[in-house]
Parts: sequence; C-alpha cells; structure tokens
Amino acid sequence: MADNKIPYKIYLTEEEMPKAWYNLRADMKNKPAPLLNPGTGKPLTAEELSPIFCDELVKQELDDETAFIEIPAEIRDFYKMYRPSPLVRAYCLEKKLQTPAKIYYKFEGNNTSGSHKLNSAIAQAYYAKKQGLKGVTTETGAGQWGTALSMACSYFELDCKVYMVKVSYEQKPFRREVMRTYGASVVPSPSETTEVGRKILEMHPGTTGSLGCAISEAVEVATKNPGYRYVLGSVLNQVLLHQSVIGLETKAALDKYDIHPDIIIGCAGGGSNLGGLIAPFMGEKLRGKADYRIIAVEPASCPSFTRGRFAYDFCDTGMICPLAKMYTLGSGFIPSPNHAGGLRFHGMSTVLSQLYHDGFMEAQSVEQTSVFEAAEQFARVEGILPAPESSHAIRVAIDEALKCKETGEEKTIVFGLTGTGYFDMVAYEKYHDGLMSDEIPTDEELEKSFATLPQIG
Amino acid sequence: MADNKIPYKIYLTEEEMPKAWYNLRADMKNKPAPLLNPGTGKPLTAEELSPIFCDELVKQELDDETAFIEIPAEIRDFYKMYRPSPLVRAYCLEKKLQTPAKIYYKFEGNNTSGSHKLNSAIAQAYYAKKQGLKGVTTETGAGQWGTALSMACSYFELDCKVYMVKVSYEQKPFRREVMRTYGASVVPSPSETTEVGRKILEMHPGTTGSLGCAISEAVEVATKNPGYRYVLGSVLNQVLLHQSVIGLETKAALDKYDIHPDIIIGCAGGGSNLGGLIAPFMGEKLRGKADYRIIAVEPASCPSFTRGRFAYDFCDTGMICPLAKMYTLGSGFIPSPNHAGGLRFHGMSTVLSQLYHDGFMEAQSVEQTSVFEAAEQFARVEGILPAPESSHAIRVAIDEALKCKETGEEKTIVFGLTGTGYFDMVAYEKYHDGLMSDEIPTDEELEKSFATLPQIG
Repeated sequence: MADNKIPYKIYLTEEEMPKAWYNLRADMKNKPAPLLNPGTGKPLTAEELSPIFCDELVKQELDDETAFIEIPAEIRDFYKMYRPSPLVRAYCLEKKLQTPAKIYYKFEGNNTSGSHKLNSAIAQAYYAKKQGLKGVTTETGAGQWGTALSMACSYFELDCKVYMVKVSYEQKPFRREVMRTYGASVVPSPSETTEVGRKILEMHPGTTGSLGCAISEAVEVATKNPGYRYVLGSVLNQVLLHQSVIGLETKAALDKYDIHPDIIIGCAGGGSNLGGLIAPFMGEKLRGKADYRIIAVEPASCPSFTRGRFAYDFCDTGMICPLAKMYTLGSGFIPSPNHAGGLRFHGMSTVLSQLYHDGFMEAQSVEQTSVFEAAEQFARVEGILPAPESSHAIRVAIDEALKCKETGEEKTIVFGLTGTGYFDMVAYEKYHDGLMSDEIPTDEELEKSFATLPQIG
Repeated sequence: MADNKIPYKIYLTEEEMPKAWYNLRADMKNKPAPLLNPGTGKPLTAEELSPIFCDELVKQELDDETAFIEIPAEIRDFYKMYRPSPLVRAYCLEKKLQTPAKIYYKFEGNNTSGSHKLNSAIAQAYYAKKQGLKGVTTETGAGQWGTALSMACSYFELDCKVYMVKVSYEQKPFRREVMRTYGASVVPSPSETTEVGRKILEMHPGTTGSLGCAISEAVEVATKNPGYRYVLGSVLNQVLLHQSVIGLETKAALDKYDIHPDIIIGCAGGGSNLGGLIAPFMGEKLRGKADYRIIAVEPASCPSFTRGRFAYDFCDTGMICPLAKMYTLGSGFIPSPNHAGGLRFHGMSTVLSQLYHDGFMEAQSVEQTSVFEAAEQFARVEGILPAPESSHAIRVAIDEALKCKETGEEKTIVFGLTGTGYFDMVAYEKYHDGLMSDEIPTDEELEKSFATLPQIG
C-alpha cells in the first residue's frame, strides 16, 4: 500500500514528543483583544480572574509574549498514556477518490474520552492539583469535555463536579456513565444545588436546561466553595496553548519525513482543536518562514466565521461571563435542535478570530448531510468511525482532494480527526434513515441575534 | 514514570510485525478432536465443509500440521490500519496497587470495531473475496463481531448480511448503526427472510430471538445463495489461527526488551482472544522451550472450563452445526439474562479445551460485580474504559499482582485487554447504581443442561 518509505502511521518516539507547548500569540503582531469585565468594560486583571481559574492558568490566559511554555513532567507522563497520536497517511481514501493528492490526518480519538479534549483537561487538572485545590467544576453538553475532565481528575484524585445540560443527562446517558466510572459527580442542570439553578427552575419549571445555564451553575459552585475553581474545554487562550501539542506532534512527524503540507484543515466550534492543530504552522506563516493554506470548517447551522460579526460579545448565553472580541452570532444564538454533534458555540476563540480577521486563514461552512456522507465514506475505507464534529474537516479534505483530481495537482493535505463517533450513533441512524436535514439560519434570524450584541469596543 | 528504558507503550515497527500466523495445533502432541458430522457421527471432510466456509478457510480449519501460515500481503496492509496494537506497561496500575509485580497489557481496542475481532474478520473477508464470492453471512449478538465483519467487508467491497438477535437489534441500536455505516444489511432474527426464521416465528410468535436461531438463519442464507459463505468470529481453529497475531506481536514486543512473562492471562468466551494471545507462548511450553503460567478467565455465570464437561457437543443451540469435542455446559445452556457483556457461549474452542484437559493451562471463574470493580479501578488509573469481557482478565491480573504484593515477588504479568466498553454503559450504569448481581448457575441447572449432551465420542 505504501508507495514510499513513509509509514502508514507516523508515531513519534517518546524522545521526539514535544516538551513545551507553543503559544501562538507570541508571534502575532495584532494580539487578540483582551477579555473585558462585563461590569466595568475594562480588561480583566489576574486578580479578577483568580477566583474563577487557578493561578497558573490565569497566567497562561493572559500571557501574550512567551512563545514556549514547558509542559510539566507530570503532564507529559499522562500524555504518554495516549500520545503520541498517530499521523496517518490516508492511502485507502486517496485510492478510493482516485486523487493525486496526498492526504494525512492527525487522529486524536484513541483515548477513552474519544477526542482531543483530554490534552487540555489533564493540564487544567494538574495545575488545580498543584495549587492544592480540592476540585474543579465545569459544564458539559453532550459530555465529551466532561468525560475528558473526569478522566483527568480521577488521575490526580481531584473532586470533579460536572453540570450536564438536563436534556443530555436524560437522553444521552452513556457519556454520563463514563463520567461516573471516573468518579465525577454529574448533576443535571438546572439543579436545586445552586442559587442560579433554583432561580431558573422557579422561573421556568420543567426546563430541559441549556449550556449557558450549566456554565452559570458551575461558575457559582467554583466561586462559592473554597478550594474549587472553574475549568473550560475550549475558546480560552490557555486551552489553545495546551492543544498546541496536536500541531507540534503533527509538524514533528511531517518534518521527520520532509513532508510540506499545502493545506491544513480543521473543524471549528470554539477553536480548541483548530487552534491546536495549526499553531506551529501558523507560527511559521506569521514569521514569514513558510506558507500554508489554512481552512477552518464550521457547520452551516452555526456559522460564526462565515456569517458572524467580529465584535465583543458574551461567552455564555447567561451573559455573566467575560466579554471576548470574536466572530460571533450573538450570545442568544441557538443552533437548530436538528443540528447533530457539537460545534454549537455561538462565538470563537479570540486568537483564531483575530487571525481570520487579519487574513491568515480561510473559513468554510458545510451542511450536515454532506458531512455525514463524508463521514461514512471515510469510515468505510479508513476504518475509523469519525465524530460528526471531525467529519466537517473530512468533508473539506475530500473536496480539496477531488479538486486535485481535476487539476492533477499532487497537493499534500493535512486534516485534524478530532475524535470518534461511538456516542453519536443516533445521528448516524437519522442519516441512514434519510431523516437528517440541513439547518441553516436565515438572515433574519441572524440579524435578530446580532441585536443582542453589547455595545462595546 | 518509566523506571527503566522500557517505553510506556511498546509498538513494533512495520518491519517487526508478524508476517505469518502461528498454528498452535502443529506443536500439540494431542491434537484437538475433529469436528463431527452430526448426521453420520464421522469427522467432517473438506467437501462437507466447503458449502459453508470458503475453500482456503476450510483448509486452515483442518490443518493440524503447518506451524506457520503466511499472512497475505492484502491482510497485512489492512492490519497496518490499526496494528501493531500497543503492549502497554501498566505503571499507573502497579503504583495504585503498590505491587512489585510488573504488569503489561496488550490492548486490542483501538479500532472502530472496538475489539480484537477484526483480526479474523479481515482474514475471512479476504479469502471470500479471493474466491470470487459475492458476500458472507453471519450472526451477531451484541454486535461486536458483526461490526468487525462489516468493516472488513466494506474494505473488500463484499456484501455482508448480519442476522442480529432481535432483542439486541431493538435494545442495542448503536452497534447496529455502526454496521449500517459500513454498508452491512442487518436483519433482526428470527426473520421472515429464511425458512428456519419463518418456522420459528410460526412456532414462537413474539420471540425475541437467540444466537442459536441467528446462526441457523445465517447458515441457511449462505448455503442457499450462490456466491455466499458463512463466517464465524470465535471457537473455530481458523479464528484462533488469525488471532495468533495478538500473541506474536506480544511476544515480539517482550523479546525486544528481553522481558520474560511469568503469568499470561486472557478472558475466555469461545476462545478467540485467549487462543490468539497465548499461541506462541503455549507453543514454547509445548516444545519444552520455556514455561509460563497461563490462566483462562471466564464468568462464573457461564463457567465452561471450570464447571463444564469435556465432551462432544453441538456448537449451536439449534443443534444443526457440527459436533465439537470441548468443555461445554450443554448446548441448551443459557446464561442468566442479568449477565452483562459477552462470554456467553456454552462451549469452548477445541484447541483450548484439549490444552486445558492436558494440564497446559489453568482456568478461573470470576463474578461480575468483582469484574466491574476491577474495570472501574483500571479505567481510573490507566485511562482506558475496558469492555466487560476484557475486565475478566483485569480482575485476575489485579488479584495476581496483589498476591505479589504480599509475597514481595516481582512477577511479570501479561494480560489481554481485548476491547473497549463504549457500548456497554448500560451495564456500567447498573454497577454504579448498585443494581448488578452475581449470577451463578446451580449444580441442578447444570446437570439438567448436561442431560442434553449427545451420546457420542
């Protein structure tokens, strides 16, 4: 199958694995705009952030200068449990598509959390433990981030409280049980355990919850209980920093065999995967050392980059969290319930937003039936059952490979395969049964949502 | 974490991967007793088997002499998609147990089928394709084997018809959808599509099906449709042959670092995993070249080795398949419905049965609550969420490591971690909620079941 000396799967040795994360912000001339305090409208200080996040993470969140931040040995030890992740040459997919393009994917799904989320979960748990905290709180929707965090907390023997959107808690019990296996306490949100939860239940009895409400509950518990902090799985600078391990490994693997990618593709929800995957490549691009075409892929049902505004907005629907300058659909935007999988966040990482705004990357939106078509095509030849989120990147990788087929160009395409779809079979079933539809917000809906944007910045 | 130069995970290079399967029967002085034709009571010939299995597989099934059988290049290419599987040093588990024992596990779950079943599925699909067949048929219970087969058939563009026990088809829809993703047609059994299915539906309207009935339907379709053959995921000699890749990789990885295992542990249902894992080690033992303690672990609810009879019996509950001499609980034996996961087969591979009978290996039965306790303990420190089946081996590995803690012995323990538990969260939930019970058949129940044994051999 291999037509040269490049292995089917490139694994780095333990020695070749990254020893420091790469902080892309250090190489950005236009730094991402700072987070603002929603009360004062002024940039948030370390002091203001420290009751919410643990100290070392606050430092990382605000550090726009240090290019390389050492990965602590304890985290590198944990990484060894599931890293390096393989960089796979998609020989079978290439053959099936009859394309001259060379396709590689970085597969992050070979761990129990099923996705790349574990890369940051373990870092955040480590710093919480190091600070002597008792535990952390977070929210989760479908449960991917909550699962990753519960694994990390179990490893460091930290208490882990997860507020899970009630409708997911009830309808998607499997990830809930994975979290319980790892010893997390999983509470359906809104709950009676918090002030904000009780308030919401009083105002909306019978509500099935929302991510915004779950965030509010998790933050309340973290700030009211001594020894606890809140953690988040995407959007934040610190998360992109930790996820740079994906891109650093990818680049090391490519460099090892002298491969220069032409196109780098990643799916984008809050930006944790995309920001991590592209980090070292974007760094070279910013420093004028190399050029790459970088494509963010988002669902047409939640098109922050391609149809959003670049403006300050709240990160949560409850409007209690800091304001971030980002591509946003408005904090009141809720994707159609028929939209499968994740990538439902109304905003986007401020780092990626700035880079997109400055023209360093492209964005494409894709419709979900075509995403599942690509997912199934990929699964059948490459063996891996991809998560719906990851399949957004597969869709565009296939599209680009088919363009190469027409032009005869032998481009090298690298995409991020963020996770597996084992817990998404209900969506696959809908697709098989022809019951899946494409869900695109109308201009009117978006205008209505943009009207909720705060008048700042 | 590593206290020496042995990596956390040992991966073989492509060059180090096995190029031939090892046929353990070649080194057995007492060969396994032959399969008998249930009609004539005489050993089955290649001619009698060829309408059921494809020709090359019939040859492999009957070949007790050839020690090494080359793995065709096409199968080795497919193996590269998910092999080599890692041999992992369980440093975290050792630390947690505070044992001087060194624990290794061979992890077969990093592929979409979620288990080792793919090793034989791809081989059986390959030979079917090579013979120019249109497709294959099989049965599946929970769906692990069916999933593996559908992946293999998709790769070789073979038609794949899976008869899935109706109750699983309805209550466990996720693996069904994975199979559909790979293009398999999945039929709830009993069905109207076969004579035997219609007969059973007439006799037992409203039945939720059984594995025995699904086998009968799959065999009928294979033998009545030109260009089709039947395939099976365990028990058979050919399956153990293909699965020897597990043991060969394990041994190569251990040899690479000069590690000599003292104890080798595997879970045992029909024997596919255990037979594969131990193959090269047992071979050395049979040739007097080395000694190993080899332990088969089975559920107390389906204790073929530890409480069964060594006798000729039917392989299916429908009593239409060949007779095999094996440790059996009687073909009418059905484990308690409260028994979670697989390992439900009433019999056992004839190869393993003979070896056990001749004293070359031990067997232990374990109760399911203690199995889930071990599973959870393992998940929390090693990160991987194990399948209930695999967790039987974890239980005994932990027990042996704890014995070492008492005696101070630094034994090296290797066990097979056959798969992941993502589709078994209902069982985990039961365990978390304290609703899981141990299910052990009474002597009376077993005696009743033994009464169904045919009077042969």
